[in-house]
Amino acid sequence: MASIKDVAILAGVAVGTVSRVINNTGAVKPDTRKKVKEAIEQLNYIPNEVARNFKMQKSKMVSLLLPSIWHPFFSELAYYIEDELDREGYKLMLCNSGGRPEKELYYLDMLQQNKVAGIVGITYNDIEKNVNTNIPIVSIDRHFTKKITCVTSDNFEGGRLGLRELVKAGARKPAFIGTVPKVFSETINRRDGFVHEANELGIEHVVFVKPDPLEDEEEFFSEFLRAHNDIDGVFAMTDMFAAKYIERSSKLGIRVPENVKVIGYDGIQNHGLFHPVLSTIRQPVEEMARTTVRLLIKKINGEALDRETYRIPVVFRKGETT
Amino acid sequence: MASIKDVAILAGVAVGTVSRVINNTGAVKPDTRKKVKEAIEQLNYIPNEVARNFKMQKSKMVSLLLPSIWHPFFSELAYYIEDELDREGYKLMLCNSGGRPEKELYYLDMLQQNKVAGIVGITYNDIEKNVNTNIPIVSIDRHFTKKITCVTSDNFEGGRLGLRELVKAGARKPAFIGTVPKVFSETINRRDGFVHEANELGIEHVVFVKPDPLEDEEEFFSEFLRAHNDIDGVFAMTDMFAAKYIERSSKLGIRVPENVKVIGYDGIQNHGLFHPVLSTIRQPVEEMARTTVRLLIKKINGEALDRETYRIPVVFRKGETT
Repeated sequence: MASIKDVAILAGVAVGTVSRVINNTGAVKPDTRKKVKEAIEQLNYIPNEVARNFKMQKSKMVSLLLPSIWHPFFSELAYYIEDELDREGYKLMLCNSGGRPEKELYYLDMLQQNKVAGIVGITYNDIEKNVNTNIPIVSIDRHFTKKITCVTSDNFEGGRLGLRELVKAGARKPAFIGTVPKVFSETINRRDGFVHEANELGIEHVVFVKPDPLEDEEEFFSEFLRAHNDIDGVFAMTDMFAAKYIERSSKLGIRVPENVKVIGYDGIQNHGLFHPVLSTIRQPVEEMARTTVRLLIKKINGEALDRETYRIPVVFRKGETT
Repeated sequence: MASIKDVAILAGVAVGTVSRVINNTGAVKPDTRKKVKEAIEQLNYIPNEVARNFKMQKSKMVSLLLPSIWHPFFSELAYYIEDELDREGYKLMLCNSGGRPEKELYYLDMLQQNKVAGIVGITYNDIEKNVNTNIPIVSIDRHFTKKITCVTSDNFEGGRLGLRELVKAGARKPAFIGTVPKVFSETINRRDGFVHEANELGIEHVVFVKPDPLEDEEEFFSEFLRAHNDIDGVFAMTDMFAAKYIERSSKLGIRVPENVKVIGYDGIQNHGLFHPVLSTIRQPVEEMARTTVRLLIKKINGEALDRETYRIPVVFRKGETT
């Protein structure tokens, strides 16, 4: 049977090039690629990798579950996850779960049937009971209590940082606004970090939260604006939340940052073209994505991980709202 | 051998429910789903669909090729494409080609090896020579001359509409600004429609374009602003382009819309939270996405299509820049 070396010789390229073509890792010029593939056909060469996958039915596909790809944070995340998977020779299957349990469970089935090698992403349903500890799943933000590896930005530190930056910008009575998901989510730590730091520094503060999903957004903001018209700082759970506060408060003549300093969380604005450019706690999206993939591939290969939760440091990015 | 009816009876549900579970179409309560799957296992029932796929090695996977999912227009497109594919029982494989030919060609190989049932998306490389007419590929925006079915917004009408709206808003000397891709792209029609309508109406106008990709964005805009300081309207090839023009012109004291009316193309702002809210030619993204999938599935099923290019009507969405 022909070897990879025979293919390289016939194609007139290095063995490494043949391997790159077979595994689709790294750049290969189209015409070089063509030559290699012709040599493979001519020699009827079966790459070990392919042969092994065929024998073991090993999938080179990873599913990404997201509430919706149509969101700047999730699409940036998906971009880097696909890029990192591609480097490892894996393909990405995208699923907008829309928070629908049956759709998320379907992908769990595919995993159990080895149709996909692993799952990464964000799920908002408590599908924990359907999974076991060693299954190759890496969760982003969401904690499956103690069972599933989780990669997240350091939300608690982000909350502390948000409070400190508001105070530094001159706020004397800052408020945290956001929602509380049904199942435990890392995002709660943004609030807890904010409260912890306020107490540490002895800063008077307000926490205004409602259950997620919000039934009436209008009501949320008008109630907040009515009940807490003396606050001079807002730390919003997300950038979108911050932008919505600014939009509504401006209708009441509240000026940002003159009257109220505002800080969001995520860093969805990757250019300064639309205003206000939010001051925000920037999620390390690229590092979260690549870390998630690297951990997943370790799990796929049966390697043990040293932790359950991997927290990636966040940074404050000053915009026009503080 | 057990039938789907046996499964339904044992699970105590309707046959339709069993079918929905098998094909993952429509919503099924998790516990109902569980019951059905247990019945399937207990009876060792093999769904025809599964059996058929197994026999024919028919893939239920479709690849989506995009330059980058990390772009608001592409992520909205991907959202609706995944949703429509899901309704048809297909899974979506996402590829950020980044315009890399070897990556796009790899997915063509998968298609030829029946690892994927079809390909949809936007490619910027001339991979036409590698495909034949009947291959299940549907292109968005990009034309593979005469070979591949293409779904696009009506860019020519969009260009005409843009010119008319600028004139209606008071512009006497509007300009088109944009880039010209190496391979033919539907986006060219935005310029051509703009010029056509300007000539029709006898409107003095400017066309300022450079080859894509832009080598020096700064230079592009400063040259345009220097050479054409008498224009009072701008129709930009994309929203991002429009926003960049506004950002740079404002530094020269040019006020939008007072001095210059600006219209973009795409409609990437799906909320009014960040400003300026661009006046724009809104792409019918959802309809483009669902049409693309419906046409692809017809091709997968070997049905003949009545056209090569499907143009979806666009609308003008007034913002704060006209």
